[in-house]
Amino acid sequence: MPNLSNSTITIVGLGLIGGSIAKALKENAPAATLIGYDSDQEALELALAEQVVDRTGDLKECLESADIVILALPPLLIAEIIPKLPALIKERAVITDVASVKNIISDSVKETPKAFQARFVLGHPIAGSERRGYSASTKALFYNRKVILSTVDSNLESSISAVRELWQLVGAEVLELDLKSHDKILAATSHLPHILAYALVEALAEQKEADDIFLYAAGGFADFSRLASSDPGMWSEIFASNATETSKALDFFIKKLIELKKLVKAENRHELLFRFKAAKAARDSFIQKHYKNND
Amino acid sequence: MPNLSNSTITIVGLGLIGGSIAKALKENAPAATLIGYDSDQEALELALAEQVVDRTGDLKECLESADIVILALPPLLIAEIIPKLPALIKERAVITDVASVKNIISDSVKETPKAFQARFVLGHPIAGSERRGYSASTKALFYNRKVILSTVDSNLESSISAVRELWQLVGAEVLELDLKSHDKILAATSHLPHILAYALVEALAEQKEADDIFLYAAGGFADFSRLASSDPGMWSEIFASNATETSKALDFFIKKLIELKKLVKAENRHELLFRFKAAKAARDSFIQKHYKNND
Repeated sequence: MPNLSNSTITIVGLGLIGGSIAKALKENAPAATLIGYDSDQEALELALAEQVVDRTGDLKECLESADIVILALPPLLIAEIIPKLPALIKERAVITDVASVKNIISDSVKETPKAFQARFVLGHPIAGSERRGYSASTKALFYNRKVILSTVDSNLESSISAVRELWQLVGAEVLELDLKSHDKILAATSHLPHILAYALVEALAEQKEADDIFLYAAGGFADFSRLASSDPGMWSEIFASNATETSKALDFFIKKLIELKKLVKAENRHELLFRFKAAKAARDSFIQKHYKNND
Repeated sequence: MPNLSNSTITIVGLGLIGGSIAKALKENAPAATLIGYDSDQEALELALAEQVVDRTGDLKECLESADIVILALPPLLIAEIIPKLPALIKERAVITDVASVKNIISDSVKETPKAFQARFVLGHPIAGSERRGYSASTKALFYNRKVILSTVDSNLESSISAVRELWQLVGAEVLELDLKSHDKILAATSHLPHILAYALVEALAEQKEADDIFLYAAGGFADFSRLASSDPGMWSEIFASNATETSKALDFFIKKLIELKKLVKAENRHELLFRFKAAKAARDSFIQKHYKNND
């Protein structure tokens, strides 16, 4: 593979994530050739008009000259497209993906030839928005954000380096996490908050006083529920694909919530105080450690 | 009572809420005399030095000349101080409070003389922050925010008008809601999100992988958990004081969450999609209706 900044990079899927990768690469690797593939003709035309990609085409045309291929589709579509790739890409191309759940991607990769597996590096940028589509994409989406690579023993070092360099080029910090831990940890930190937001909005909307409830909703509600405006299609996929870990995380959360509810019912102010204090301390220390300039 | 903008206004409690009221009044009613009472000497000295209040003193000195008294303490302290007030205030003074839970305040007011009850107007500004204390106060806290008055039949029209005018003066929109509805609706819109945030942080902090969990936490977690950095003392009070309504809201939420968990476990993508779509629609319509310029 040539130096990344002079290489041909194909982005499959020009939505929020793919569009943002293209915009960030156009800015940070102007000598690279960027090729965009999408089933949405409008997104493609806009990306061409904005010179965010250099060319588009059918899947075969987009893949045949790529040095690096980024699969920026919803998780199930990534899993579905993988079997088609080995026949369409250059022998030495490096492949990566952006899915928020890794087990179904890994399962799909395991069905491909060993040489392809060696060059497929699982990746997940922890960045997003409740908005979706190319129109929501921005070149700054990954700046100062984390990207998790779930490498496997059979991965080539050169492929891992290329994917690592790609993400660093767009401003992200690259971390590694094996795929089982990835799906377990993301179930807790990302998938769980999303389903809580959906459940909260659902619970409020079903109250008799729903109109009043929304009218008198505090500012905190707008923040808290923002995740419930995320793409329902992608999130129903994520939960179905990571069912084991997300339902475990939900079970544990429900257990904690039932404990707290009992304390509320018993008006046990002292025990509530004790538990809220511990939670505040944990949250404050998290923010201080990881979001120094952000909260 | 003289015109509000020339009157003597005593603020009992110069924390986030009381300090913000004082700062906003100093800006918007410069001819009013502002008196501050607090047990925290440092806050008082700072407020005097910043000329946010005109004078301070013991409770008797602060109350005896007040035309309007604002009780800006945590809920239980408001309930506790009320019985002392009738002996300390001018006969025609108007009294209001800022508590997020109204039943305990109302119960305390009901023990006072009828003439005092007529001039006590229950109020609740829907504005706050996870920060607390005078140092977190700001003159813009109530600007474009809602304030809920829970008036009762025995309230004097003139007292209601004075409290309404007070809040309009600092930029808030004044709404009315009977106290039972207030406690029920706020249990759903404000108290429930707070306990979910505490429970989420607690659940994550107790995982074996807690360090990794916080390290890999997505940006959404910082937003979602912000409420868990709120004052544990005040929130344990609120839950204990509004136990009936908050535990009902929790019961309903837990029921919804268990339903969703079963769908996740069953990998029922279609039903999850259906429910996430409905939640997204409800949330998007709420935001469009009530937060036009805010999200």
